[in-house]
Amino acid sequence: PSYLDHRRSGTQRPRTDLQMTDSAPTGDTLARLADTLATRRPDQGGDPATSYVAKLLSKGPDAFLKKIGEEATELVMAAQDGHPDRIVSETADLWFHCLIALTHYNLRPEDVLAELARREGLSGLEEKARRPAQ
Amino acid sequence: PSYLDHRRSGTQRPRTDLQMTDSAPTGDTLARLADTLATRRPDQGGDPATSYVAKLLSKGPDAFLKKIGEEATELVMAAQDGHPDRIVSETADLWFHCLIALTHYNLRPEDVLAELARREGLSGLEEKARRPAQ
Amino acid sequence: PSYLDHRRSGTQRPRTDLQMTDSAPTGDTLARLADTLATRRPDQGGDPATSYVAKLLSKGPDAFLKKIGEEATELVMAAQDGHPDRIVSETADLWFHCLIALTHYNLRPEDVLAELARREGLSGLEEKARRPAQ
Amino acid sequence: PSYLDHRRSGTQRPRTDLQMTDSAPTGDTLARLADTLATRRPDQGGDPATSYVAKLLSKGPDAFLKKIGEEATELVMAAQDGHPDRIVSETADLWFHCLIALTHYNLRPEDVLAELARREGLSGLEEKARRPAQ
Repeated sequence: PSYLDHRRSGTQRPRTDLQMTDSAPTGDTLARLADTLATRRPDQGGDPATSYVAKLLSKGPDAFLKKIGEEATELVMAAQDGHPDRIVSETADLWFHCLIALTHYNLRPEDVLAELARREGLSGLEEKARRPAQ
Repeated sequence: PSYLDHRRSGTQRPRTDLQMTDSAPTGDTLARLADTLATRRPDQGGDPATSYVAKLLSKGPDAFLKKIGEEATELVMAAQDGHPDRIVSETADLWFHCLIALTHYNLRPEDVLAELARREGLSGLEEKARRPAQ
Repeated sequence: PSYLDHRRSGTQRPRTDLQMTDSAPTGDTLARLADTLATRRPDQGGDPATSYVAKLLSKGPDAFLKKIGEEATELVMAAQDGHPDRIVSETADLWFHCLIALTHYNLRPEDVLAELARREGLSGLEEKARRPAQ
Repeated sequence: PSYLDHRRSGTQRPRTDLQMTDSAPTGDTLARLADTLATRRPDQGGDPATSYVAKLLSKGPDAFLKKIGEEATELVMAAQDGHPDRIVSETADLWFHCLIALTHYNLRPEDVLAELARREGLSGLEEKARRPAQ
């Protein structure tokens, strides 16, 4: 089983670690991750015996949806505690399980980003429209 | 108030809409969105009277954290119903409120993506290590 | 609109308040509350214009189910803060919205208590069975 | 380990089961259950090795609070599916984990019931006050 398929250990990573990785291009992370997750689908040969993701996907929606509820709660708790590393790590966990759900429904993170961009775009247009004529 | 700052209406968007936007580069959507959200911080002049985001941020963590719990629940419900548009839209809502939380804690979506990439990277290394020697 | 139908204000109640009420018989509180909630059902003449509960019930499951997600999150936050009054108050909010859900599905809190008692009963039997013969 | 301390199996119970137990007095179920849960506290000799509750309590708030988020999500899913037995069973799970939280914070279900009764009482008074004078 790959690390991707298992829950990260609870070990606290040094904040500098995140910073270093920051310089790497992250733009395609979600898309790349979604590609990998797609290979874990049971109908794509994902093996529940060796992959956490394949196991969740093979169990059906209830299994990964309740993880979304659990991870959201963990994010809220980490946020209340105010630990930057845990907030980042729990947000990653939450988004990761959202990506698993998207995978199940044949949806892509690009769809979500496009929806966010669409709202942002509307906002820009709206703001322009609201400006007083010169 | 800009559209960004308000909840999208309940109107069903045609699926093609999402597809069209798909062709646009989405890689920087989260970063751009985070930049905008940062301007809504009360200490950056965000105005609670006109901006939903500024209002949430000015109320403090409890306000946006409980939204994360609510939006996660809405995503779960949309997923159970199996409506692709609603799943995308609710995931966008959930991630949007995660971004608001990150904004409050001076964190960036790039931190979350780097964490996801880090796990993915470990996975790649681990997978390579596990391959039988040629 | 009655108080029952509206969210309690955020005002902190003195702890002694709770203690005083403690002496009152509480055994039938859930049943009595369920009786009242049943009268708020739209098909029982509940009026969405004056009653928070009737409004939630008339909107359908999505409306009160997402409140369960939200109230659970609020309870978690109150618990993390460790404020006894808020923990009690948020638990009451959560159970209250559970009762609304039960009302919608024609179920009763007695069903839930019976299920809890059943598990407790099994536990007793099981514990007895596990005792070494005299 | 007693049944009380372990998650119920997934087996579907016949609805009649619940009905039969219904005739038993349920008023004190929550109080009785709270008494039992109190004995599972680590400082009361609760043994994490044999008791699910003692294990949760010994792990600290994060462990049982995230269960509240998870169980709330499971209740929402059961409700959306509309299966009466699962709704009852998931509500029992959610309330059970709320009782564990109350136990940790030295609070009692009677506190929650008193809070619900207090609101109900205010409601009654308020309704009386609102009646037009005869």
